[in-house]
Amino acid sequence: MTDSPFSRVALIGIGLINSSLARVLRRESMAQEIVVCARQQATIDRARELNLCDAATLDPAAAVEGADLVVLGTPLSAYRPIAERISGALKSGAIVTDVGSVKQGAIRDVAPSIPPGVHFIPGHPVSGTERSGPDAGFAELFNDRWCILTPTPGTDPGALSTVMALWQSAGMRVVTMDPEHHDLVLAITSHLPHLIAYTIVGTATDLEDTLKSEVIKFSAGGFRDFTRIAASDPVMWRDIFLNNREAVLEMLQRFSEDLTALQRAIRWGEGQKLEDLFTRTRAIRRSIVEAHQA
Amino acid sequence: MTDSPFSRVALIGIGLINSSLARVLRRESMAQEIVVCARQQATIDRARELNLCDAATLDPAAAVEGADLVVLGTPLSAYRPIAERISGALKSGAIVTDVGSVKQGAIRDVAPSIPPGVHFIPGHPVSGTERSGPDAGFAELFNDRWCILTPTPGTDPGALSTVMALWQSAGMRVVTMDPEHHDLVLAITSHLPHLIAYTIVGTATDLEDTLKSEVIKFSAGGFRDFTRIAASDPVMWRDIFLNNREAVLEMLQRFSEDLTALQRAIRWGEGQKLEDLFTRTRAIRRSIVEAHQA
Repeated sequence: MTDSPFSRVALIGIGLINSSLARVLRRESMAQEIVVCARQQATIDRARELNLCDAATLDPAAAVEGADLVVLGTPLSAYRPIAERISGALKSGAIVTDVGSVKQGAIRDVAPSIPPGVHFIPGHPVSGTERSGPDAGFAELFNDRWCILTPTPGTDPGALSTVMALWQSAGMRVVTMDPEHHDLVLAITSHLPHLIAYTIVGTATDLEDTLKSEVIKFSAGGFRDFTRIAASDPVMWRDIFLNNREAVLEMLQRFSEDLTALQRAIRWGEGQKLEDLFTRTRAIRRSIVEAHQA
Repeated sequence: MTDSPFSRVALIGIGLINSSLARVLRRESMAQEIVVCARQQATIDRARELNLCDAATLDPAAAVEGADLVVLGTPLSAYRPIAERISGALKSGAIVTDVGSVKQGAIRDVAPSIPPGVHFIPGHPVSGTERSGPDAGFAELFNDRWCILTPTPGTDPGALSTVMALWQSAGMRVVTMDPEHHDLVLAITSHLPHLIAYTIVGTATDLEDTLKSEVIKFSAGGFRDFTRIAASDPVMWRDIFLNNREAVLEMLQRFSEDLTALQRAIRWGEGQKLEDLFTRTRAIRRSIVEAHQA
């Protein structure tokens, strides 16, 4: 057991990402002890049943006691109160990381509560499904996906290496990035697509009842994909939009301008404009397939 | 061979849908002879190599001669010239059907060229992938999907039954619908999602080069799904938007209003509004899963 890189890992929140990470920690025998913390008793009971932890508690401060690795995996709005709560209980030399989708917000809410001698490495494993909760996780979730770490100036290189190695063990390709840049890239690749999917599915729910039932019945390729995206966790996504407001609004503005131009092209029957755009977008898909992301 | 329901089937266009249908006709031994017509010699050569046809021609009129079933499977903009071209060559009692995504446009462009004694049954097998061309087809494409037929007043019941049976043999569930209603339902389930996917992928292609390369590299769940949709055939989709203009613009207007409301909620930090919408959309996904469409 002395070979485990971590003696005690505290997982704060045990949703899709942290429960998948727990399964990785088990598979790779990376932790002598896993402690899970959740807000509800039912959740930690379920985590125990799934053998995702050796100990469980409703109290974040109790969870992090003696932990050499703490992983925040809650919605972003819980970061600040949790960070304030655990601040005094973190052991010297401990590493705190997170899995949230907005890095500037994570740093803003967590960093002030990190005491001297404890290392905070903001992180974002870019993988997921529309499902949530401890039952939704699986160890293979991270395979061949990117993990973006956004260390701040003065970050301890040893702690950074440890977190990199953690996600590499989960099968991820790890890169570092400036937090602001991360938030901009994710705004267009992830946050805006989710916002749009939520919107169009919302538009469909507002249709007259007869039309709505047929929309559900005949949901073709496009719409069905959107409903899957729009089934993602409501609280998690509310927090992402509230915390990455500027970047999302910037990308949304660009999108809206482009959509208006396309709307105009349809209204005026400008077929060549449509065909030109649709040909350009096909090329982007090829780039992504070539980048082995598809 | 006398058991084949069709002695001669003419497939006008041999893209994803018609080449999949050809494979079904082969599998089910439904046609004594399949004739393929395409605009380019290379396409009909390929159709022959793939054993999708017994005869092939570049001339639609030659293709339909003696055919008891003619299936239009080209982009919508080719419907009118093809219909005018084949009009005099159709044999008495022949059935003409199509697979296009806009039914009012199909009726407008084809019906005037259908001579007395020939039956036109507008149809739409609601299935597809983002791929196109004769190599992209496969017989299972239609399995358990809906096929919507939009017969007009006075349609021959026997001809309608024949086309229904054709798509049922392909594994589809067949319903009939008013053409106008079809176009409205598809505007929201298929056309608007494609328009939005094209737009957001276009927005991404206009980003500064460094940002764009990272968008490709880190394309997360949402964006990657959109690029797949936005890789669909440019000419086919140009024609869909031009031919279903009114319904698409109506749904786009509703979508834009909803998106503006959401944009405002993000700007003003109205978390409850966001969470409420995201909770509603999750329920729609459940309805679709329950409707066995997922």
